[in-house]
Amino acid sequence: MNEALISPRLEIESLPGIPLIHPGDDLAALILRAMEAARFELRSDDILVITSKLFSRAEGRFVNLRTIEISERARELAEEIDKDPALVEAILRESSSVSRKKTGVLIVRHRLGFVSANAGIDASNAGPPNGEGDGEYVLLLPEDPDASATRLRVALESKLGIRLGIILSDSHGRPFRQGTVGTAIGVSGLPALLDHVGREDLLGRKLEYTVTALADQLAAAADLVAGQSDEARPVVRIRGVKLHARNGSARDLLRDPADDLYA
Amino acid sequence: MNEALISPRLEIESLPGIPLIHPGDDLAALILRAMEAARFELRSDDILVITSKLFSRAEGRFVNLRTIEISERARELAEEIDKDPALVEAILRESSSVSRKKTGVLIVRHRLGFVSANAGIDASNAGPPNGEGDGEYVLLLPEDPDASATRLRVALESKLGIRLGIILSDSHGRPFRQGTVGTAIGVSGLPALLDHVGREDLLGRKLEYTVTALADQLAAAADLVAGQSDEARPVVRIRGVKLHARNGSARDLLRDPADDLYA
Repeated sequence: MNEALISPRLEIESLPGIPLIHPGDDLAALILRAMEAARFELRSDDILVITSKLFSRAEGRFVNLRTIEISERARELAEEIDKDPALVEAILRESSSVSRKKTGVLIVRHRLGFVSANAGIDASNAGPPNGEGDGEYVLLLPEDPDASATRLRVALESKLGIRLGIILSDSHGRPFRQGTVGTAIGVSGLPALLDHVGREDLLGRKLEYTVTALADQLAAAADLVAGQSDEARPVVRIRGVKLHARNGSARDLLRDPADDLYA
Repeated sequence: MNEALISPRLEIESLPGIPLIHPGDDLAALILRAMEAARFELRSDDILVITSKLFSRAEGRFVNLRTIEISERARELAEEIDKDPALVEAILRESSSVSRKKTGVLIVRHRLGFVSANAGIDASNAGPPNGEGDGEYVLLLPEDPDASATRLRVALESKLGIRLGIILSDSHGRPFRQGTVGTAIGVSGLPALLDHVGREDLLGRKLEYTVTALADQLAAAADLVAGQSDEARPVVRIRGVKLHARNGSARDLLRDPADDLYA
């Protein structure tokens, strides 16, 4: 069973002092350095929720829109929805299909399986990869966010001798509702879903709704303190979850398109 | 501006000792009694996220499926999707339109404007209104969750001499993603959306995404500790948000259907 026990009290705290990340940077080392400077401690069962942008930068996932080769398909779609053809090209390369489109808006199914605007490509904060030079850079999501989470988890666990959970988060818009929410796109060391099957309610009857999106709710909670823009604190520690099962993946959070009434 | 400042540290804690609620119960009095028993303190700027089911029970929002009059429309729809006609009748009465349907599944736009399965009608935990007698009862959402939140907020604020935020939450499924998340369906005393417009990112450029769903993220965070079924703790305190603006409504979280690509 995917079962994580959550205590009646959670503490959610952001780590200060994470610098602007450049390609090739060692995230584990940078986090350990910031932790030491801030006397910020990690212990077993802590979960770190980290903005995926940090991994994108460290992994060098920059694309220069000025030099990207624009396909005929991207050019036509860009004209139809009045968007930059180079950006549309970058989005399509990261996508398996277009979910919805209208003027200025392009919502796609990302090659990783989730549905979001612009395939998660973020023009803010990208800048040139090494802080210098020309070009108009955007940042793609990490190649394999579950794997990125696992690499960081193993590095921190072996350095600190503890067991951790790691979530890579991204801000997603939603059908029907205004405002973005932090969403889990990479998971390692904890279950993505929390299974309530078999438990009974206060009157001894079976629950109707039995699975909660643990990793998404943790990502949303962390987004509250992660801040945005000038006060950004992209690394957030959540304390109060007991990590029993360790085998989660962000793919567990994806609804099969064949079973999705909004696909 | 709708602006709430969030500290780099949040504490999320559930209140033990809330009993099963009956119609007419005084929620403020029950919460104050449970607080005293648990030495659970509230101070200014605390936000209480409370499962809407508590309000539904106190407001007597029970419907007896054995005696509800079933319309022709409900009977046909129930046959089409193989669901209990009485339950379908109750769902349709709470809805302005059907969003999606398939065997066993009925997703509607609730009369309050949000889209969710079964109009938020919950068969678990309802029982007969006063714990005795016959019938098969389900529980509707509160008539006006923003107003319910405000009534409780004013009662607690005047009793305690502090200022609070109150969120009524419900567990919602989502298009594209597995698992439910806590969602704000009533808001009082805090902004529902957090506006980042005008702030600049670390490189001095404007942010692309500028509005986060504050109340939904708080509801998701609270859902982590609220538990479900036998360990239910339906009242959760979140500490660490500064309540500057007080004028939020759950309606602020709803996307205009005319502007919704998935409507």
